[in-house]
Amino acid sequence: MSDTIRIVEVGPRDGLQNEKMPVGVADRIAFVAALVDAGLSTVEVGAFVSPKAVPQMVGSDEVLRASLKLPGEFHVLVPNEKGYEAARAAGAQVVAVFASASEGFSRANINCSVAESIERFKPVIARAQADGVRVRGYISCVLGCPFDGQVPVQAVVDAATTLWDLGCYEVSLGDTIGVGTPTKVRELLRACAEAVPMASLAMHFHDTYGQALANLYAGLEEGARVIDSAAGGLGGCPYAPGATGNVATEDVVYMLEGMGISTGVDMDKLIAATNGVSSLLGRPPVSRVVNALNAKNKRVTGTTSS
Amino acid sequence: MSDTIRIVEVGPRDGLQNEKMPVGVADRIAFVAALVDAGLSTVEVGAFVSPKAVPQMVGSDEVLRASLKLPGEFHVLVPNEKGYEAARAAGAQVVAVFASASEGFSRANINCSVAESIERFKPVIARAQADGVRVRGYISCVLGCPFDGQVPVQAVVDAATTLWDLGCYEVSLGDTIGVGTPTKVRELLRACAEAVPMASLAMHFHDTYGQALANLYAGLEEGARVIDSAAGGLGGCPYAPGATGNVATEDVVYMLEGMGISTGVDMDKLIAATNGVSSLLGRPPVSRVVNALNAKNKRVTGTTSS
Repeated sequence: MSDTIRIVEVGPRDGLQNEKMPVGVADRIAFVAALVDAGLSTVEVGAFVSPKAVPQMVGSDEVLRASLKLPGEFHVLVPNEKGYEAARAAGAQVVAVFASASEGFSRANINCSVAESIERFKPVIARAQADGVRVRGYISCVLGCPFDGQVPVQAVVDAATTLWDLGCYEVSLGDTIGVGTPTKVRELLRACAEAVPMASLAMHFHDTYGQALANLYAGLEEGARVIDSAAGGLGGCPYAPGATGNVATEDVVYMLEGMGISTGVDMDKLIAATNGVSSLLGRPPVSRVVNALNAKNKRVTGTTSS
Repeated sequence: MSDTIRIVEVGPRDGLQNEKMPVGVADRIAFVAALVDAGLSTVEVGAFVSPKAVPQMVGSDEVLRASLKLPGEFHVLVPNEKGYEAARAAGAQVVAVFASASEGFSRANINCSVAESIERFKPVIARAQADGVRVRGYISCVLGCPFDGQVPVQAVVDAATTLWDLGCYEVSLGDTIGVGTPTKVRELLRACAEAVPMASLAMHFHDTYGQALANLYAGLEEGARVIDSAAGGLGGCPYAPGATGNVATEDVVYMLEGMGISTGVDMDKLIAATNGVSSLLGRPPVSRVVNALNAKNKRVTGTTSS
């Protein structure tokens, strides 16, 4: 397990998009810069979505433009051709599209069936390919749906196959509501790896029920090598308000480094970035590592930290 | 991995002992009863230690007497012969002794060397054996020490061998400060299983850095079958104030049940027990599962929960 693990930092997008309190453009730009400075080389920085539906992502074009001056790879979410055009105008080189593995979530989230959502982003992928833009595919609710309950493994495999066949370079498997457990993760990865190479499957787990790190370890054992995470565990879950969001990058880094897998991340800098955005959000981070190290530093230095 | 996993609920002792706010005897008796009613059949209910040093455990004789009227197995911690006598007078049938794997922690925690601490509980074990009382052995700091830093695997194996050879029926490996990661857990268990049968090794992990569930899953993969946990993640860590304590029983149960391993625990009843004690402590539970399900229930029922 000593080979390289890639971390895709999704805090500025999947994280902040699901926080009640919007963070302004300048602060988001500073947040991305801090994450890059901490050693995170792939960061999802924004979404070209309706500003009315998702005010947290307003100004994603500015955030992307500023990010592209930094070293690293920067992703933005695009739901449709309009979003794609705006993303391209801001210089996007990697875009992400998304589909649900469950009909119930697709209806509730984007008001169309899974098949319709795929039809909707087919032209996006086609245009991206023509433009030489790489496309990442997200699948949500891969281990359970807040509306449909259990999601059949085959539904995930079908969605993964579709995204891969359409030309996505990577398929990110999202446990959107955090209900997965290790054996189910392994079963799912094994099944998806029949359709998509294991090296091109990302694990995108939410920590709603505290299972995310165990699930990631199980997935690493199964051979997966890409992890989506958010600094400070940003995000929350709209289906369980008050619950935890994305797995915290700090907790992931702590586990990987403890296992002898180098991440290139400077933990102190990362925690500083998290503390900064947490104080803007007006709430403490949910990352266990951040809280433990903040408590320790407070004890040692006598200073307060957010 | 479908065989039985045993959970040792340590909330009323290792949990409450490390909470700033003491919980009264009657409330602790009610807490134990609620845990048993929720399906936890092995519960550590108290410690026969100095009331001056550990006021949280005052009245452990009353708590034990009341517990012994319930169905299940009830443990109490005894540091020395005096404690053992008091525990026996209250009817103890299982006692726990403890040693550290690191000299620094031993000195700080019980003001003597590891070797001296072993000499101290040798007569306890001898008397327990004569009385037909079973003895459980705890080893602390098995994956790191707040004073000595790294702890050699051999130091843990030596302590485990000593406890086993003296007659302990089970040796509980404590990651007291929660710094372990999955591969280190597996290495440690593999080494200890050379001296103590794997079935007689318990995993006692704190969730300070969020690693506990991943570590437990790794340990299960390695063959371990006993898990110590505390309802609601009670406990905290004296070396990182504000940090998380024992791994939460709810999070463990969620993982095991999700993996198809039946625990016999009624999650709703367990969460009710946790919410009850959390309101006495005046702080929210740290268990991800408890917080997520409390949030969900609040949303559904419109009622508030602690």
